[in-house]
Amino acid sequence: MQVTSFAMNLIFLTLLTFTPNVALVEHAHYHPLNPLSPFELNQVKTLVKNSYKTPRFQYVGLDEPLKTEVISWLMQNKTKEPISPRRAFVVARVGSQTYEILIDLSKKTILRGKAYHGNGYPMLNNDEQELACQIPHKYGPFVNSITKRGLNLSEVMCDISTVGWYGEKNTKRVIQVIWYYSTGGTVNYYMRPIEGVMTTVDLDAMKVVAHRDRLMIPMAKADGIDYRESKQRPLYDNHIKGMTILQNDGPSFTLDGYNVRWANWDFHVGFDMRAGPIISLASIFDHDMNKYRSVLYKGYLSELFVPYQDPSAEWYFRTFLDAGEFGLGNCAVPLQPSKDCPNNAKYLDGYYTSQDGTPVKISNVICVFERYSGDVVWRHTDTESDDYSAEVRPDVTLVVRMVSTVGNYDYTFDWEFKQTGSIKVTVGLSGILAVKGTKYTHQDQIKEEIYGTLLAENIIAVRHDHFLTFYLDLDIDDVANSLTKTRFKTVSATNGTSAPRKSYWTVVHETAKTESDGKINFDSGETHEIIVVNPNKETNVGNNVGYRLIQGPVASPLLYKKDYEHIRGAFSDYHVWVTPYNKSEKWAGGDYADQSRGDDTLAKWTLRNRKIENNDIVLWHTIGVHHVPTQEDYPIMPTLSGSFELRPANFFDYNPVLRIKSLKPVTYVNCSAKLS
Amino acid sequence: MQVTSFAMNLIFLTLLTFTPNVALVEHAHYHPLNPLSPFELNQVKTLVKNSYKTPRFQYVGLDEPLKTEVISWLMQNKTKEPISPRRAFVVARVGSQTYEILIDLSKKTILRGKAYHGNGYPMLNNDEQELACQIPHKYGPFVNSITKRGLNLSEVMCDISTVGWYGEKNTKRVIQVIWYYSTGGTVNYYMRPIEGVMTTVDLDAMKVVAHRDRLMIPMAKADGIDYRESKQRPLYDNHIKGMTILQNDGPSFTLDGYNVRWANWDFHVGFDMRAGPIISLASIFDHDMNKYRSVLYKGYLSELFVPYQDPSAEWYFRTFLDAGEFGLGNCAVPLQPSKDCPNNAKYLDGYYTSQDGTPVKISNVICVFERYSGDVVWRHTDTESDDYSAEVRPDVTLVVRMVSTVGNYDYTFDWEFKQTGSIKVTVGLSGILAVKGTKYTHQDQIKEEIYGTLLAENIIAVRHDHFLTFYLDLDIDDVANSLTKTRFKTVSATNGTSAPRKSYWTVVHETAKTESDGKINFDSGETHEIIVVNPNKETNVGNNVGYRLIQGPVASPLLYKKDYEHIRGAFSDYHVWVTPYNKSEKWAGGDYADQSRGDDTLAKWTLRNRKIENNDIVLWHTIGVHHVPTQEDYPIMPTLSGSFELRPANFFDYNPVLRIKSLKPVTYVNCSAKLS
Repeated sequence: MQVTSFAMNLIFLTLLTFTPNVALVEHAHYHPLNPLSPFELNQVKTLVKNSYKTPRFQYVGLDEPLKTEVISWLMQNKTKEPISPRRAFVVARVGSQTYEILIDLSKKTILRGKAYHGNGYPMLNNDEQELACQIPHKYGPFVNSITKRGLNLSEVMCDISTVGWYGEKNTKRVIQVIWYYSTGGTVNYYMRPIEGVMTTVDLDAMKVVAHRDRLMIPMAKADGIDYRESKQRPLYDNHIKGMTILQNDGPSFTLDGYNVRWANWDFHVGFDMRAGPIISLASIFDHDMNKYRSVLYKGYLSELFVPYQDPSAEWYFRTFLDAGEFGLGNCAVPLQPSKDCPNNAKYLDGYYTSQDGTPVKISNVICVFERYSGDVVWRHTDTESDDYSAEVRPDVTLVVRMVSTVGNYDYTFDWEFKQTGSIKVTVGLSGILAVKGTKYTHQDQIKEEIYGTLLAENIIAVRHDHFLTFYLDLDIDDVANSLTKTRFKTVSATNGTSAPRKSYWTVVHETAKTESDGKINFDSGETHEIIVVNPNKETNVGNNVGYRLIQGPVASPLLYKKDYEHIRGAFSDYHVWVTPYNKSEKWAGGDYADQSRGDDTLAKWTLRNRKIENNDIVLWHTIGVHHVPTQEDYPIMPTLSGSFELRPANFFDYNPVLRIKSLKPVTYVNCSAKLS
Repeated sequence: MQVTSFAMNLIFLTLLTFTPNVALVEHAHYHPLNPLSPFELNQVKTLVKNSYKTPRFQYVGLDEPLKTEVISWLMQNKTKEPISPRRAFVVARVGSQTYEILIDLSKKTILRGKAYHGNGYPMLNNDEQELACQIPHKYGPFVNSITKRGLNLSEVMCDISTVGWYGEKNTKRVIQVIWYYSTGGTVNYYMRPIEGVMTTVDLDAMKVVAHRDRLMIPMAKADGIDYRESKQRPLYDNHIKGMTILQNDGPSFTLDGYNVRWANWDFHVGFDMRAGPIISLASIFDHDMNKYRSVLYKGYLSELFVPYQDPSAEWYFRTFLDAGEFGLGNCAVPLQPSKDCPNNAKYLDGYYTSQDGTPVKISNVICVFERYSGDVVWRHTDTESDDYSAEVRPDVTLVVRMVSTVGNYDYTFDWEFKQTGSIKVTVGLSGILAVKGTKYTHQDQIKEEIYGTLLAENIIAVRHDHFLTFYLDLDIDDVANSLTKTRFKTVSATNGTSAPRKSYWTVVHETAKTESDGKINFDSGETHEIIVVNPNKETNVGNNVGYRLIQGPVASPLLYKKDYEHIRGAFSDYHVWVTPYNKSEKWAGGDYADQSRGDDTLAKWTLRNRKIENNDIVLWHTIGVHHVPTQEDYPIMPTLSGSFELRPANFFDYNPVLRIKSLKPVTYVNCSAKLS
């Protein structure tokens, strides 16, 4: 397979004449990476609708200025004129054709519009998923399936499954509607699948193209599946008294639009329909140098691959690329104050576009809060002193959080900034498991492979993986960086020393020259550290400045390499990949993930084996878990979380928190302090 | 090598007649696992001193009642009569002989006293370490070493290094005194080693037996090494405003002596001179069954192996067994309120014994606090509902914390209990690195192996490992348990299904029959889950109840197997070991760790390959890190932490937090709430 070259197909290029003096942005907080405002999204809608016949908007987002432009703007302390032009990128479906449309919002023109003829389809929009759930209700065979089971059509719920790709030469833009049943008002219909019934809908034609009804499986009971507190009988009490965060003088961070400044950090939080939160231009203030030093040009979750491990006809295709197929931003949910985030959080809103291009607001889509969990950033007790005097620094950090509910699953994404210079990324998995109906009510009855765990009577939670591939465009103290692999090596100690020691270990630093050197698996049995260094900058004593990746929980794919879903999800093959920066390489599973054929993945791009040494490089880190459900995950899953950390490694000459005033102890309660 | 059988050598057996009606314990909170009280420790002192000539106390601790007795006491809701007799175990040094002394505190008698003739020496007590630092000051060659360097004797500081074992047939109980220099009142003398000078002291004779002065190395400068806030010039400000925890109605846990009850947990916190905190009898309340179910009979850090990786004459022997040589309880430090633990913490005191048997109090040695770090225990947004209604449960947990300052290093040990049933153990590493002096001031000068990182001018931080082996006597829902290895296996999907999927993965459960099946490495490339199950108990649908080990960061030894320090630290060879419960197998590196020869380690015990299936078993988990220092660790180290988790896996029929009343939001500030 080769990287597909997109056929140019310029459709319209229209100069629209709006009012001539529309401000580049309508609010005061200009930043070139700000997400498109509702005003801009409406501009986009109008421009596209004027040029295309009944376009269906699948993706609308900021087309970022060139990295050089953004850095130049930043270097001038953001006081420079706004970068012009401000651009939007649109993926729209017109009939059965995908179009890529680039818009100049400053001049209010479509710069380029071209049909996409490659493999795969764009992200599903939320409206077409809703429609696809509704139309089978007027489709006879589906209605028969429901009525012959004695179910009530009005209580049937649905979920949309993409279909993957299994070698078909010609495909249509179809999805499978999976059916559930919601008796007596329980909201947790995911625990009551109407197993064996599924309906194929063509999203372009918006009609049923197939219906399958192969199995009659007893429906799981509704008792015990509702997770709402109001429905619990009995409701037990663990007698936890209220506790909260008190900040007498309010939070210590400032939000200037989408720009966050806190402690020694300055960064921008974007919001994208596909990626969700995007951290950009994260720089850390070096007090000795009296300047901000760049760390992360851009970081976001590029793809999230969730292959289920049941090869049966009703399940084999459930191999989701959640970011590319459903959109982590599209699926973001309003955060519940004082629940999803603590009482001291501040919130940002986000916007996605509906099918017709109208901006839809998600209130409180991102929260920002200071965390003090009781840990220390450093400490030492001087045991030689008479009074055991100790110097202890409590650790306060800053968290940026978003939650995506992708159907059944709830993903919490945290970007945590530490005064030590670390950036820690944590993903929490909660929500509802994907389950299948079964005749079995007890383990003793089961003599066959059931592909999962018997969670409760008539419910099997199917085993699956989560592979999360993060895009981390590190710019360690400038753009040109290298990847250093620090290998641990056992050495015989007999040379030269008279000591009776026989061996010791040392480190061997290897610089990755090309992309093939940058492919790393942490579970290969090799022991090493991964450090992104700036080979052109040194500390006071001559170590190259760098940041180390402390890997998250990793898992490696267990499927055959030739298996279709593995080809599509091949970016999960390595835990670390390094590529030279390329504006067009954003999505590890390819731009068009739905029914992708694996010809536009990170695994393909890196076959070119480009030079990555002393270059503007992007590090991709895949964390993952093989999820074997347990009964504790029923009917709602306790959060399972995993983290990775970017930690300074000779970036500073010394501990950056050494000379920082310690947190003042709070000695009184400000009775008028706001708790939210 | 064989497990040494200790020669019985009964010395004294004296019935002492104290006042006849001394209470078994002097306080109201009787618990058979309570650490020895000061009253009891004084009893021990008197009894031993009456029977041995100038005994030097190396270890004094509770000799626990039989497990069966403790469980029987617990089953009767702790209302049963106290378990009699209450016993103490003493390791004392008399002249050049180690004695093991068992004492009946109820009858005030020595039950058994025997000389220990095996390999290795007991834990060093704090007083002899202090003495060993002082006596070289009157030893001519040492004084010469100091004066010829132009240093001031009164500003010389010291640290004690154990010497390991390097094949010697006959050993004495010696240590190396390592010298540092503290100019101008900086407390961080660890950053100014008097490199090349070291003095060997015989701890029994308490005299200098050797002195070495091989190198003249420039002393690192004192500027920049003091970590105290008061000494920082300049002192920068990150402008973090005060924040604290507010519990209007106080904490939700109760301390009854050393017994903690919180939410659905009940457990006991002990304190031991060697192990530090010991968690015992941790049981979780099952609301449906209306009873506590056992999880962890006992958990503590059994050994902490820190081999440095510099084979030179001054460094090769620095291969510490911190628990067995120095004692994590001996090295525990008073926790600083509102700094080491948050303002809402409560504290317990602990006692170790000085060389002459006198109890020494460590105030605030353990803290217990509720943590709310802003995370959620579970959540789901019902995206089908019109208002995107969400059910979100904030996560409040309970933390038990102790800090040990073992010379330069500060270890924070956290045992965290979650309402989900998880027990999470976190170790934080901070404090000061062990560094060596060097002539080098810049990386460019270095053409040889320096065994570490140039941290600053004239300072190299030597590379080393930390291997922490935890003792986890899990009693999952009763005493008889098994270890299940759940292996992941790729399966061809061609059999029977018409779907185009080629492969999937499944799980194969293997029950470990004997100790050799229980040895597991997580970095072997094999993928599996480790679950301790109760093979005799099932959930409602027939899964065996169990707890899964979610491993911490693991590292494997890199030294030659035949290397002496590796033989002594061979318990680090596997990340998991499972043994049948044996009261005498407590210390992974052997009872007598100082100069041990590896004949009494976990690696040796398990060679017997005992039966571990459906048995009372102990799981040992080794977490570790190969530590390559960076300049950020200078002059004091930002905390590096690692965690493992014991997580219920089909222990409950369903999510144990489902039916629990959610945390009440705090809507007002109680102005009279106590902040500490």
